Formats: sequence, structure tokens, C-alpha cells
Amino acid sequence: MSAIEIPVGSPFGIHNLPYGAFSVRGGHRRIGVRLGDSVLDLAPLLGDDTFAAPTLDGFLSQGRERWDAVRARLTDLVTRDVPDSAVHPVGEVALHLPFTVGDYVDFYASEHHASNLGRLFRPGSEPLMPNWKHMPVGYHGRGGTVVVSGTDIVRPCGQRKAADEPAPTYGPSQRLDIEAELGFVIGTGSALGERIGVDEFERHVFGAVIVNDWSARDLQAWEYVPLGPHLGKSFATSISPWVVPLAALRSARVPLPRQTPEPLPYLRGGEDWGLDVDLVVEWNGVEVSRPPYRDMYWSPAQMLAHLTVNGASTRTGDFFASGTVSGPDRRQRGAFIELTWGGREPVVVGGEERTFLRDGDAVVISAGAPAPDGTRIGFGEVAGVITPAVP
Amino acid sequence: MSAIEIPVGSPFGIHNLPYGAFSVRGGHRRIGVRLGDSVLDLAPLLGDDTFAAPTLDGFLSQGRERWDAVRARLTDLVTRDVPDSAVHPVGEVALHLPFTVGDYVDFYASEHHASNLGRLFRPGSEPLMPNWKHMPVGYHGRGGTVVVSGTDIVRPCGQRKAADEPAPTYGPSQRLDIEAELGFVIGTGSALGERIGVDEFERHVFGAVIVNDWSARDLQAWEYVPLGPHLGKSFATSISPWVVPLAALRSARVPLPRQTPEPLPYLRGGEDWGLDVDLVVEWNGVEVSRPPYRDMYWSPAQMLAHLTVNGASTRTGDFFASGTVSGPDRRQRGAFIELTWGGREPVVVGGEERTFLRDGDAVVISAGAPAPDGTRIGFGEVAGVITPAVP
Repeated sequence: MSAIEIPVGSPFGIHNLPYGAFSVRGGHRRIGVRLGDSVLDLAPLLGDDTFAAPTLDGFLSQGRERWDAVRARLTDLVTRDVPDSAVHPVGEVALHLPFTVGDYVDFYASEHHASNLGRLFRPGSEPLMPNWKHMPVGYHGRGGTVVVSGTDIVRPCGQRKAADEPAPTYGPSQRLDIEAELGFVIGTGSALGERIGVDEFERHVFGAVIVNDWSARDLQAWEYVPLGPHLGKSFATSISPWVVPLAALRSARVPLPRQTPEPLPYLRGGEDWGLDVDLVVEWNGVEVSRPPYRDMYWSPAQMLAHLTVNGASTRTGDFFASGTVSGPDRRQRGAFIELTWGGREPVVVGGEERTFLRDGDAVVISAGAPAPDGTRIGFGEVAGVITPAVP
Repeated sequence: MSAIEIPVGSPFGIHNLPYGAFSVRGGHRRIGVRLGDSVLDLAPLLGDDTFAAPTLDGFLSQGRERWDAVRARLTDLVTRDVPDSAVHPVGEVALHLPFTVGDYVDFYASEHHASNLGRLFRPGSEPLMPNWKHMPVGYHGRGGTVVVSGTDIVRPCGQRKAADEPAPTYGPSQRLDIEAELGFVIGTGSALGERIGVDEFERHVFGAVIVNDWSARDLQAWEYVPLGPHLGKSFATSISPWVVPLAALRSARVPLPRQTPEPLPYLRGGEDWGLDVDLVVEWNGVEVSRPPYRDMYWSPAQMLAHLTVNGASTRTGDFFASGTVSGPDRRQRGAFIELTWGGREPVVVGGEERTFLRDGDAVVISAGAPAPDGTRIGFGEVAGVITPAVP
């Protein structure tokens, strides 16, 4: 038995306690909580088989009271001596996809991002579509290709056609991009025909992860009219392995930017779910952007209310992401297509001018939020390396 | 022990043998095959626990050799006497969702439908988008709201805005519609980074069902730019309970209509997977349309090749649908928005002029294909009744 050491200023202090799925030296997967540089093995620590499972699914399905009770117990427990056998150095564990992904919806909730993409994809027309300020616009992505941080990203092939070309060609994407986002994990679902109100967000949503919604811009630009993005996105979406509970984000909550025009009643009210989370995008180890989540126009509570207003059911493991987080300044843009203005204004990375991703490039997105004691709540990171297209 | 009687001309003869999940008087769900007006309980009949499961998932994952072996064994077995305890009249069983739906992609593969919708949604511009003849355009729908035939459809609420209104309003959809489609069920999946060629369709796809992709046209028209349909579709998608094996559709296979311009190489070749399937749409018991599947522009083998050309993985239970099946004639249109030309040319149903769906309306879509012995291969039906919006 010994006390768990937490390095001073660790973003994984006692106010965070994110959950993940881990294994040690090829052993079976199970649920852990990160504290400092350690991973706590919850099943033996709490004497609770819910956490002996390979995913968080069972725990997620148990609901808000249970999530809060386990958090209260953990908060108490981690200040005491715990059995050494239940504590693993984070460097010695493998981290896995923390939950079974059901339906995945990606929103488009940053006004800066939506305006920038409108200017780039539809030059000469109004950047924001008429519906954009009335609803959190979103679409379904591919749940089956959500992968955990560290998974290599194979450069996708597909059709693309430049405006001046007579016909499309087939080949590896030449405009492979990232989108830095936050994602929200549904714990307890809702029945077909039922709506989740903006004030019911905390009853249904367990926590948040960082998302990299890899995007092949050339494939996307050619395919997306009129049914939206498909192959340009469906090849992979990476998420961070630690799910930060909503309870850990209390001190990060801020009012939303003012919404004008006022949204329809089903999108109004509830508590403030703006989030003062800073994302950091590193390209081959060089910081290229710091997208500020606090500038997002639509809150995750509004996203969920919209997603279910037509009676669509939700399940444990359904997952929705914010869309690219971009702020007003160039160095706050969460996608390279914005950061380099369609590839026309390169950024310097490691002494080279760069626009889109090359084979071998590594992207790491990290995120953090204020903790009540003045430290940070860390989300960890979502990392991926581009590998060459398969011929 | 007795022989199973098959009514003369039954669309569920020995050349069909579709699989479904059934239960008797509230008992546990298990897998059956339909023959004539009977359901055969496969677990006791074959002495095989794969079929004691509540869904087809296990059997689907076993692959083509096993599917063919079980079909050969069944074809032999149903001509002999079988134990009476393994045979249930179809009227005495409840039918359930036959497989666990993973990712659901809906295509848009009828040229007549895509052209009609283009004229209705974007009057004055080219009806077909420039990409349409180069790829089977599609998008992800909501897998979690795929329901089995017979499930009531609650009228969805949401935002809609007519062109002459200054702002959107919220309320029950006033343009609730159907889309008559076929859907294809993936048995054995493919890994991330892997492609499924047009000639590998039969290795991966187990069979087909009828799909009603319920659509709220007012919600869809307001929301769908630029990310595609979302709330206008995600409230419910109904499928028929019997999965017709691809092997039963051999005699329905026909060449595709000529594809001009010639598609890119990854969409060329393979065997003919045009399908001579006739759909029939009944509205409150009145036949209003007979959409011909044989006129579809893109084959399901091309759809799957496109879906995976970027390396997107597939899993048992992933499911893709054709999009609305519409032929060149008015009475061959598979959606009411086309059949009534945006509501401007009503059809007469039960003595009344009708455009979109009212509460209490019932829609039944059935389908059939040629069998080798001159009878028909029946798909059964997908039925749904509209219930009022929840206030």
C-alpha cells in the first residue's frame, strides 16, 4: 500500500479523473482512471466488476447518479494509500478505444470555421448558409472507423476533380487535412420518439474527448453536393483515449457567445455549456494552432437537443463531435485548409513551407481546461501518423 | 414428422428461403427461415446453436462458404418430413429486427429519382450534380433508428422554413414522405485500409431487404445545405423482416443500364448486379406505384466498392441502401414528393386527393423477383403507420 504521487501541476490531478480502457503487456483490457502519471486499475481498487470489462460501455449505461457516486468514492480513495498492484505507470500501459461507438454525428458549430469553409468551398457566395444561425448543422459520420489515438492513418484514395479538369481522376488524396474538435459521449440513451431537452444534457452525456476528424479535402469537394461529406471523412476519425467526465469540466463552463437571432425555444435555456477548453495542434512537433473552444457558437447541450428533436433515439456509446474548433485569429484555426487558406498561404513547420499532410507527418492535438485549484484539467492527446496510400 | 406444405405459386418457395428473427408468444427470439406460410425454427431443425441467437449476427459473420453450405442443407431438408415442433405458422410468430445494424449508408442510385429531386429542390439548375454519373453518391444515415416493419412511425418535429417565410418555425413535419428502396446487409466485414472490389460483392454481402427511408421533406429542405440530410431522415428507417440471400436472387440478375461516361476502373467489371426486382407501394391499401429496381443506374456491387475505396472498414451488420427506386413513368416513382410533383399533383387514394402522409396513414412496400421455376422470390413487406407528433 502506498500513496499515489501526483507531480505538481499535473493536468491529471484529483479534479480530473478521466476514464479509459487499458491493458498491461498484452493482458486483458480493463477500465482505469488516470491520476498524475499513473493508471488506477478500477476493478480491484473498487471491488467492482463493472470495471473489469474491456470498454466503458457498462459503466456509461448506468447513469448520472452512479457516475457521480463512483467519482465521489474515487475522489476520496485517491487521497489514501492504495494497493501497489492496482497502480500502473502510464508509460507501461497500452490504451484502447474507451467505448463501443454507436452512431457518430459531427456538427459544424464554430462560426469562424463554417465561415472560412464557406469562403473556401463556395467563393463569391454568402459564407454562412441561411440555416446556420438557426440550428447546429450536423451530419452522420462513420461510427465504425472511429479509432483510438496512436492508430496510423492510411492516406485514403478516391475521386477528385479540380474545377479546370474535364473529368475526375482516381488516386491518393492530395489534400489530406485534420479537424481539431471535441466529442461528447452519450452514457444513457433515449427511446425512439423521445426528445432530450437542453436542460437534460448532464443526465445523458458522460464526458468528452478530443477528436481529430481527418479530412481528404479533394475527395470532399468533389463528392459533397448534395448529400454532404462521405468518403472524404469516413476513412478514419481519431479520438483521445481518456474520457474526461462532465463533472471535471465544471470550472471550465462559461456562457456561450451571444446568439443572434435568438434560437427557437427548443434550443434555448438550460445551463451554460460553453467550455473554456484550449486545444493545441502540433504538426511534426511544432505548435501551429491553438483553437479556443470557448468561441463555439452552439453548445453541446444544444447539439444534443437538436439531434433528438425529431424523436431520433440515442444509445450508450453514441457520440457527437463539435466540428472544427476555430477562433477569429489565423493561429486559432483548427484545420489546415483554413490555416493555409486553401493551401495558398503555407505555414512553416520545421523550416519548411507546408500546406496539407505528407506521408510520415505526425499530428498531435491536446487540450486543457481550468481546474478549480488553479491547475489544468488535461484531456491528454489524440495523435496520428500518416502512412502511404495502399496501391 | 410431416412434410411442409407450400401453397402453389407462393413467393416463399424452395428457391427463396429468406432468414429472419422470430419469437412465438413472447418466447425468446431465434432464427427462422420462411417457407410457404411457415417459419422453420432452424436451431432444432439443423441442430445448430448459431440459430438459437436473437439475431442473424453470428451466422452473418461466418461467411460465404458457410452461407452456401447451410442453404444447400436447407434446400435438401425442406423436401423431406421435418419435426412438427420446428414449424410455426407465420401468422403465429412475431418478427424482429433480423440483425444488429452497424453503420448505415444510403445511396442515391436511381437516375430518375436524383433528376426528379434535383428539379424539385433546385429548380432552374441542372437536375443532376456533376459528380452523379461518376460515383454512387451516398451519405451516412442513423443506424440506431433502423426499425423492423410494423413499428409505428411517430411524426417528427423540427425546423422548416418556406422560401417566402422570414424565419424558420418549429413543429410537426407537414411533408412526411416515404422512399422505397432495397438495402444490402454486410455479412463479413473488411479491415481499415482495405478495399472491397466490385468482384468481391458476394464474398461480403449476405442478402437484401426492402427499406422505407421515411423522409420529412420540409425539415430536409431547410437543413440539408451544406452537410446533407440529417433530422429529415434520422427519426426512423424501416426494413422488412426477411433477409433474402443473394443466392436466391441469381435468376433476378440483369445487366445494368449503360453507364455513360464510363466509370473509373475501380467501379468497372465484376458480374452483373442489376436486379430485376419489382417494388410495389401501397398507401392505405391502394397501390400507388411500382418502382422497377432494374432501372437503377449504379449496382450494389459498385456501391460497396465506392464505400470502401478510401479504406473505410466494414463490419457484420453494416448496411447500405440503394436510395429511392424510381422508374421513368409517373407510377414508377418511389417517393410521394416525386409521385405528386412536390405536392402540386395529388394522387387519388381511397377517393381522396392526397399529397403527403397524414396521421393514421399506412404504407406497405412489397417486392418480388423472378424465381428459376417461373414463380416469384418474395421479399415480404415493410409496413408502417404514422402516429401523431408528440407535443
